[in-house]
Amino acid sequence: MPNGLTPIKIISSGIALPENKIESWQLDIKLNKPKGYVAKRSGIEHRFHAKDNDSQAELAAKAIHHALETQHIVPHSIDMLISASAISVQALPCTAAHILEQSSLKQGIACFDVNASCVSFITALQVAAGFLATSQYQRIAIVSADLASRGIDWQDQESSLIFGDGAACMIVEKGDGTSGIITYHHETHTKGIELCEIRAGGTRKNPRAGMTDDDFLFHMQGKKLFRMASSLVEDFMQQVLTDSKLQLNQIGTVVPHQASHLSLEHMRQRLGVKSEQLIDIYRFRGNQVAASIPSALHEAIISGRFYGQPNVMLIGTAAGLAFCSMVLIP
Amino acid sequence: MPNGLTPIKIISSGIALPENKIESWQLDIKLNKPKGYVAKRSGIEHRFHAKDNDSQAELAAKAIHHALETQHIVPHSIDMLISASAISVQALPCTAAHILEQSSLKQGIACFDVNASCVSFITALQVAAGFLATSQYQRIAIVSADLASRGIDWQDQESSLIFGDGAACMIVEKGDGTSGIITYHHETHTKGIELCEIRAGGTRKNPRAGMTDDDFLFHMQGKKLFRMASSLVEDFMQQVLTDSKLQLNQIGTVVPHQASHLSLEHMRQRLGVKSEQLIDIYRFRGNQVAASIPSALHEAIISGRFYGQPNVMLIGTAAGLAFCSMVLIP
Repeated sequence: MPNGLTPIKIISSGIALPENKIESWQLDIKLNKPKGYVAKRSGIEHRFHAKDNDSQAELAAKAIHHALETQHIVPHSIDMLISASAISVQALPCTAAHILEQSSLKQGIACFDVNASCVSFITALQVAAGFLATSQYQRIAIVSADLASRGIDWQDQESSLIFGDGAACMIVEKGDGTSGIITYHHETHTKGIELCEIRAGGTRKNPRAGMTDDDFLFHMQGKKLFRMASSLVEDFMQQVLTDSKLQLNQIGTVVPHQASHLSLEHMRQRLGVKSEQLIDIYRFRGNQVAASIPSALHEAIISGRFYGQPNVMLIGTAAGLAFCSMVLIP
Repeated sequence: MPNGLTPIKIISSGIALPENKIESWQLDIKLNKPKGYVAKRSGIEHRFHAKDNDSQAELAAKAIHHALETQHIVPHSIDMLISASAISVQALPCTAAHILEQSSLKQGIACFDVNASCVSFITALQVAAGFLATSQYQRIAIVSADLASRGIDWQDQESSLIFGDGAACMIVEKGDGTSGIITYHHETHTKGIELCEIRAGGTRKNPRAGMTDDDFLFHMQGKKLFRMASSLVEDFMQQVLTDSKLQLNQIGTVVPHQASHLSLEHMRQRLGVKSEQLIDIYRFRGNQVAASIPSALHEAIISGRFYGQPNVMLIGTAAGLAFCSMVLIP
């Protein structure tokens, strides 16, 4: 149905991971748990955690360079950079400027951040399509990079096991109009705003307004969050399919946020997404915050489950509490 | 030239200011300066500073409500909220979710942040036009709110005098195609990235990576910043005019970022913007960071200098160092 299709074409993708691989048995020792506890509890074999002096912007730049090199794209041909990360490098200026500084991209290009927490990448893809439509921009790099490890609360068993760091980049063009976005859906239910947050970092908690070290940690009320998300996601997904005029079995590949072991199981069991439809990289990455969706999309691309599919769905939950989904023709 | 025009129509605007008005003579006393020093040095009569327990999200919500009430717009008719602020409420979730929570807007709508530092509003306006083009969204609220006072370094004479807090909101629709965006230009020159920054707030400076209270303060190298900005802005503005196929005298109203007394003088003296073309609210607001451009645009609207103009230019410099401009038909 290229009728009403918003044109966009992903021409290359790349990822980056910190060097420091953390096996679940290492966390068993760190957290004083019996052997196998963390792997079983989290569903993760290993994830990657940046060292304390590693840079989010550098990791993002690595993902951009990976995407450029994969398809031999000249860095100077990129005319816009969008950062679609959940947590910023610093309060000011925007994260995209820091990433541009670390990258081989052309100085002087347009750059800015799109932030919709863990679903930022989906929103950024729609935003990029809007800029490409004006014909003032021809080739846009979208990059998501998050260092969740910097905010892990090691006292909190629920959240400390599941996060991994990483970055992923997609390079997009307008294409010839045969590929593009069928629908974009985005909902924010703020009754869940406190279920998943880092309170410091802005005007709310700082030396002038008052803060503690705890405000810099990721706080998640996992059970409440899962209950609220799973009660809303079924209707949400149904709405996306209805508006796309598609059945779930017409979606070749579903690229979900890798939120948790439980959330991916929920997609299979309750939402009826078949294992062969679902991209699941959680076991070897954990929840990479906003980098999860584009990292999973990269996996879909390199494993031959993106191009050639009739339709692909991106879908995720995010702090807020938000739901976002896009159905696109690759 | 509605040829290639990206349709968008501003249907209402509103602003909000903290209650706490700070006269320049009060800063003379606070900073132990002779009477009249701050007013003369800064070019500001008064600005507004939030109290330490005031909320950025509440201030943003007030600006939204002002815009809704002015044109009797039903809150439930807004289907997307974009925060276009430079500094976030907190690291996670995004600022727009916090603003939605404080507002009378419908729960469950799409919301996210666009951050291009001080020029965020211009970028958000172009982003909104992209969403309106898909026809999945009909009426978008864009709000910029910044509490610069929370990061003022009172030891730094250069920057401490010029900042004021505030919020502004524009409500936009697609319109009938006669109004819209002619050109959007955006450049980021990262050799100036350290000239204007707040280092804390994200992954770079925090308890795990190391930080001091000083990292939460706004740091500006004013002279270097002004020198670099003024050396680039002339070419930038000329490029915008060339691409718009317009002469400066065909621009009815120029809405600049209210960066400083000097930057506004520079627009008049060096760039040749006539006083009757220029929106200047600096004397009674100071530099309101990302809230400056939409606040000045609101001033243009209520003083009859927006609708009915053949062309209007928004233009600003931002931390990064970035330049952004848009020429639109109101």
